Amino acid sequence: MVATEVRAAVIGACGRMGSLIIQKIMATDGICLSAAFDVANIGTDIGEFIRVGKLGVPVSDPKNLAAVLKESKTDVIIDFTIAAATAINAPAAASVGVNLIIGTTGLSAEQKTNIVSEISKNNVAAVISSNYSIGVNVFFKLLKEAAGYLGDYDIEIIEAHHNQKKDAPSGTAMTAADVISQALGGKELVFGREGVCPRGKEIGIHAVRGGDIVGDHTVMFVGNSERIEIRHQAHTREIFVGGAVMAAKWVCAQKKGVVYDMSDVLNL
Amino acid sequence: MVATEVRAAVIGACGRMGSLIIQKIMATDGICLSAAFDVANIGTDIGEFIRVGKLGVPVSDPKNLAAVLKESKTDVIIDFTIAAATAINAPAAASVGVNLIIGTTGLSAEQKTNIVSEISKNNVAAVISSNYSIGVNVFFKLLKEAAGYLGDYDIEIIEAHHNQKKDAPSGTAMTAADVISQALGGKELVFGREGVCPRGKEIGIHAVRGGDIVGDHTVMFVGNSERIEIRHQAHTREIFVGGAVMAAKWVCAQKKGVVYDMSDVLNL
Amino acid sequence: MVATEVRAAVIGACGRMGSLIIQKIMATDGICLSAAFDVANIGTDIGEFIRVGKLGVPVSDPKNLAAVLKESKTDVIIDFTIAAATAINAPAAASVGVNLIIGTTGLSAEQKTNIVSEISKNNVAAVISSNYSIGVNVFFKLLKEAAGYLGDYDIEIIEAHHNQKKDAPSGTAMTAADVISQALGGKELVFGREGVCPRGKEIGIHAVRGGDIVGDHTVMFVGNSERIEIRHQAHTREIFVGGAVMAAKWVCAQKKGVVYDMSDVLNL
Amino acid sequence: MVATEVRAAVIGACGRMGSLIIQKIMATDGICLSAAFDVANIGTDIGEFIRVGKLGVPVSDPKNLAAVLKESKTDVIIDFTIAAATAINAPAAASVGVNLIIGTTGLSAEQKTNIVSEISKNNVAAVISSNYSIGVNVFFKLLKEAAGYLGDYDIEIIEAHHNQKKDAPSGTAMTAADVISQALGGKELVFGREGVCPRGKEIGIHAVRGGDIVGDHTVMFVGNSERIEIRHQAHTREIFVGGAVMAAKWVCAQKKGVVYDMSDVLNL
Repeated sequence: MVATEVRAAVIGACGRMGSLIIQKIMATDGICLSAAFDVANIGTDIGEFIRVGKLGVPVSDPKNLAAVLKESKTDVIIDFTIAAATAINAPAAASVGVNLIIGTTGLSAEQKTNIVSEISKNNVAAVISSNYSIGVNVFFKLLKEAAGYLGDYDIEIIEAHHNQKKDAPSGTAMTAADVISQALGGKELVFGREGVCPRGKEIGIHAVRGGDIVGDHTVMFVGNSERIEIRHQAHTREIFVGGAVMAAKWVCAQKKGVVYDMSDVLNL
Repeated sequence: MVATEVRAAVIGACGRMGSLIIQKIMATDGICLSAAFDVANIGTDIGEFIRVGKLGVPVSDPKNLAAVLKESKTDVIIDFTIAAATAINAPAAASVGVNLIIGTTGLSAEQKTNIVSEISKNNVAAVISSNYSIGVNVFFKLLKEAAGYLGDYDIEIIEAHHNQKKDAPSGTAMTAADVISQALGGKELVFGREGVCPRGKEIGIHAVRGGDIVGDHTVMFVGNSERIEIRHQAHTREIFVGGAVMAAKWVCAQKKGVVYDMSDVLNL
Repeated sequence: MVATEVRAAVIGACGRMGSLIIQKIMATDGICLSAAFDVANIGTDIGEFIRVGKLGVPVSDPKNLAAVLKESKTDVIIDFTIAAATAINAPAAASVGVNLIIGTTGLSAEQKTNIVSEISKNNVAAVISSNYSIGVNVFFKLLKEAAGYLGDYDIEIIEAHHNQKKDAPSGTAMTAADVISQALGGKELVFGREGVCPRGKEIGIHAVRGGDIVGDHTVMFVGNSERIEIRHQAHTREIFVGGAVMAAKWVCAQKKGVVYDMSDVLNL
Repeated sequence: MVATEVRAAVIGACGRMGSLIIQKIMATDGICLSAAFDVANIGTDIGEFIRVGKLGVPVSDPKNLAAVLKESKTDVIIDFTIAAATAINAPAAASVGVNLIIGTTGLSAEQKTNIVSEISKNNVAAVISSNYSIGVNVFFKLLKEAAGYLGDYDIEIIEAHHNQKKDAPSGTAMTAADVISQALGGKELVFGREGVCPRGKEIGIHAVRGGDIVGDHTVMFVGNSERIEIRHQAHTREIFVGGAVMAAKWVCAQKKGVVYDMSDVLNL
């Protein structure tokens, strides 16, 4: 028996995320690039465009998605683009039996429902997640564990992001607070402290903003005479890349007709 | 129905650890101090000796252990003393049906065997552990979890202790390395790096020494584009106190004739 | 020539702070304990009271302060007590030519004026400071330096204290913000962030509360592609002890009739 | 009077470093791009090549360096290329009165001497440094200050870099150790601890290796009851970019015929 490589196509191949996913595919055993799609640079060798050397895979027009996927014997597409594009391309890929890794955010309920329906109808497997980072998913899992054991310790969350981020706290910090709060049957949240403010049964959340920090999240569990800190630090904005390629390899071996999450891929 | 308090006796009550355990008992619901033993200050009110105010519990001579435990209706003894004392006092307490929390280190195999035999014979419950810290036990549990998910990340351990500590790395750091190594099917350990030393499939362990640091342990799991750090920091040398009192409350409700560990108490 | 030791007397000798100062004096070359004062335990050997072994120095009544200081050839008193006591004892010590180390807080303007007047009149030297910690004073100095060089970096302060602290942020965090703000010609302060809050030319201050944390202060200077963090962590509540004894040795060699600050002692 | 912009030319404009320097110039007030040089892509608009939009500056051949610099009225060149190229281009630029920012590493003594000689002969100003990072230079300055105040505290250095780094410790960590050691009159270095190793008057240096960490350096000053930590963390490998552009603006206003260092630029 010959072990075969998973053949993956990348949508939005000429963008920053697409480029990084292609480089990760090239560097990973058991998976190869079967096709590349983008609305610009059609016909250009994608390797030359992203300046990693000729790959023999031309950029294709998404209008021809189904035909190119069939011709290139693609097993799975990886799509981190925009909702309007994914709403069309994901069902089109499913319709020709191709599995899906979807990292696009901002899909409407209707768009999601339609995609899931096509996955089911065409009996393909898919991973749909808003966060493909391996580390962030493990971070949430560890927080849930720690909260279960240290529920009577004082819990504080400190996140740090770049100075252009307009909202606070970060979505990841809020998810962390939710995970902990659920494990403990509900917790009040406090967003900073000033003046007289005795500590109650709360989770304190602190949003640091500065420079070009990609994203730090620290959760402190503080008791008498000791503390435990669990910290995730993103080094680059591309923490999704490794998880996306891992998911692409994984999904091809799963039961069809099912939509999975990153916690399934990581077996958390 | 009336909820009854666990009645706990403390051995070595006049020492630093005994004093802290008594203060923790006084501050904890569901447990009270029934008796206090020490070889000095016999007859003195233990509360006055440790300067927390009169408690109505005199210091008793360990020679009268069994009689005083019976008279004081003690449910459990807490013993963080020395091997020679525990080797006598633990069996004596068990012989009158009193449960045991033993934090004494340095017990010989023979002494341990004898204590366990008395626990079994007299049908009492016991917790015997070399580390009653809640945080350190949870820390090990989280490391095991994280190693299971992030086995292909690079793992490094940094510990810091006071400048009088003669050996390196700390026992806790070595246990952390063992926990991780076992989860991953074996790992080589490296204790510092100098010169040309390309990184292999190893765990790096780094021992920082300075001032009066009680004990910091940080484990880093570093991948491409992200890292997770799990950190335990002891604030004081008395991190065992909370766990010991927790264990004392817990053990009285357990199946008799069994020797438990802190991971049982914490349900890890 | 014979090097002579500084002879120091401790006021409030039986209290926690007094006890620690005495132990530090015993462990430091060039200084020795000449007398000990407290309102209780008069006549008891202070070494026996604080359980470090007989020192041959009895506890004296502060009512006899001047006489005992003269008889014991005391060079300097160290006073970390309460305002009402210091208001009486400091002038009394100065009146017999004894130098002063005053760490008492809460002195009224009138009390301070009177003490300074006596220092001047009797030609003694004194250190009066609200913070004798060597590290905290160096921390402020480093912040001032860093702010001078990194004024266009984003600056954030994170402090952490125990869960019984009712006010936020800490006095030390506010002093840190003042030092930085002055170096930069004024900065707005922001105490936590929630919702839409684009970052301006502000210093963010974040107050973490949990367990029995003694006191952590971290200042982050974050630019594009890098950050510098300066952090002070107190391990125990007795960070003043070393600085107080250092000041006592130092002040005896200084020009008389002057009131110094810890920045003079440390030559910052 | 009209404030004029500094006109800067970039050598190696099509490379990663050149591209980032150009983007930084575009984003900085008071400086603009006058010319761009590279051995490839000659004639292409540099803005289009680095995909930031047309800039109206074509890539020029370094063979025509002097002529293009004159024609473009360039005030200063920024050169982060290779020794063989800088050895030719720096003297050529100086010969037409253009100031120099040189970040190229690996120049031989002879090459350096020749460059300095041309700077002097042609009366231009130059900055030559192996480290243009603002933060790293400030970090060294703060370490020197801190060591001066905290010389009797225990000092430990922890650095962390990516898992492909073959040597340990990092050059920056060794420079940090040198700066501290010089401030203290010499210190022994220890590179990791294992077994029985009582702490002496040493600096411990610990090299962590993992994932794609760009470069963390932490120096701990640990005393009794407190510690100060000073930490530099690089977010990206381009921490030199900001300092290089700052130096380019600065050098044009300095006394001619002098070779400066980044500590001059930063006024450390």
